[in-house]
Amino acid sequence: MTEAKRLAAEKAIEFVEDGMIVGVGTGSTVAYFIDALARMRHRIEGAVSSSEQSSARLRGHGIEVIDPNNAGRLALYVDGADECDPHKCLIKGGGAALTREKIIAEASDKFVCIIDPSKRVDVLGRFPLPIEVIPMARSLVARAIVAATGAQPVWREGVQTDNGNWILDVHGLSITEPLVLERELNQIPGVVSVGLFARRPADVVIVGGEPPVVL
Amino acid sequence: MTEAKRLAAEKAIEFVEDGMIVGVGTGSTVAYFIDALARMRHRIEGAVSSSEQSSARLRGHGIEVIDPNNAGRLALYVDGADECDPHKCLIKGGGAALTREKIIAEASDKFVCIIDPSKRVDVLGRFPLPIEVIPMARSLVARAIVAATGAQPVWREGVQTDNGNWILDVHGLSITEPLVLERELNQIPGVVSVGLFARRPADVVIVGGEPPVVL
Repeated sequence: MTEAKRLAAEKAIEFVEDGMIVGVGTGSTVAYFIDALARMRHRIEGAVSSSEQSSARLRGHGIEVIDPNNAGRLALYVDGADECDPHKCLIKGGGAALTREKIIAEASDKFVCIIDPSKRVDVLGRFPLPIEVIPMARSLVARAIVAATGAQPVWREGVQTDNGNWILDVHGLSITEPLVLERELNQIPGVVSVGLFARRPADVVIVGGEPPVVL
Repeated sequence: MTEAKRLAAEKAIEFVEDGMIVGVGTGSTVAYFIDALARMRHRIEGAVSSSEQSSARLRGHGIEVIDPNNAGRLALYVDGADECDPHKCLIKGGGAALTREKIIAEASDKFVCIIDPSKRVDVLGRFPLPIEVIPMARSLVARAIVAATGAQPVWREGVQTDNGNWILDVHGLSITEPLVLERELNQIPGVVSVGLFARRPADVVIVGGEPPVVL
């Protein structure tokens, strides 16, 4: 899948225009995108990054990382996903950067999602759904998820997000109504964000391959 | 209003039963409650606290502060409010502890709200609505609030919550449908929690006075 990831990332470069501040996600596919972006670093204004990890890689290539509070709306956001359904709804958060990714996706006019073919599914939920929680609410949120869905939340022990919070991975979901589930889980106190991107799905999905497929 | 706060807090002690773990909020009215609770500290198991400030006061009185992840459901939560409407829906968060307060309220079977008479309103919103946000999302959330409500979010500069986040105070709202607004604001990425307690309002409201009024 390494080559597929690289091909998807290269294709996404075609969406970058001169003078842009580019929203940049997190993960192994995005790492290829950052490396490709480095070749045109003098033509863009900079990047807004969803993680410390991506910020370090961007800076390593001499690309300026801009505080989203100073960036205004973004024309473009490029990020990967853990699962993608036919409606371009996504599960994200395997890399624990879901909250910042949601923030940047929301601030962007066009969200280009780059994936390898293994990420495509008919129904989301085979990949456990990540949920970022305030640490003191871990047990409460887990109980609420069990009550609401019957699924199994598992604490991703030892992992702290860039926001200082914890992750629950919810196993055993079959997400036939992603928008409804996202809205419902957002109501639970202690939930910082839900790794479902249904209210704000991707606009374009690039599936890596020879040639890449643009959906 | 000092005496009214003390009288409300004293009345709330009647809801405390032997062996309880008591959920304890934050603020000037709650400080009186903690002081009153100290008199019966040998009869309770301990407290779950919504802030570092309340934890320090509880410990100062020799009351054990218990991690909510180890407490299970709570029988009782006692906290103040910045505004209270006739349906016992509340605005909270003037003390910046709203997220932890929401978490504990959700985990509790009975939420007893203690206020002085000045906090009673017909329609919530005269008091600016506090919203806890991930710092990098401050501008995005502010723009989304303006777009959704037309009200004026003001950054509470220099204030960091116990969770490491920032507060926006939303001025100029007239909250005729608190449940709808709470649900809507909860959907904005970067919002950690909304200082509206409508989905989980108070169960009992004690208005301080001579005698106190229990609603």
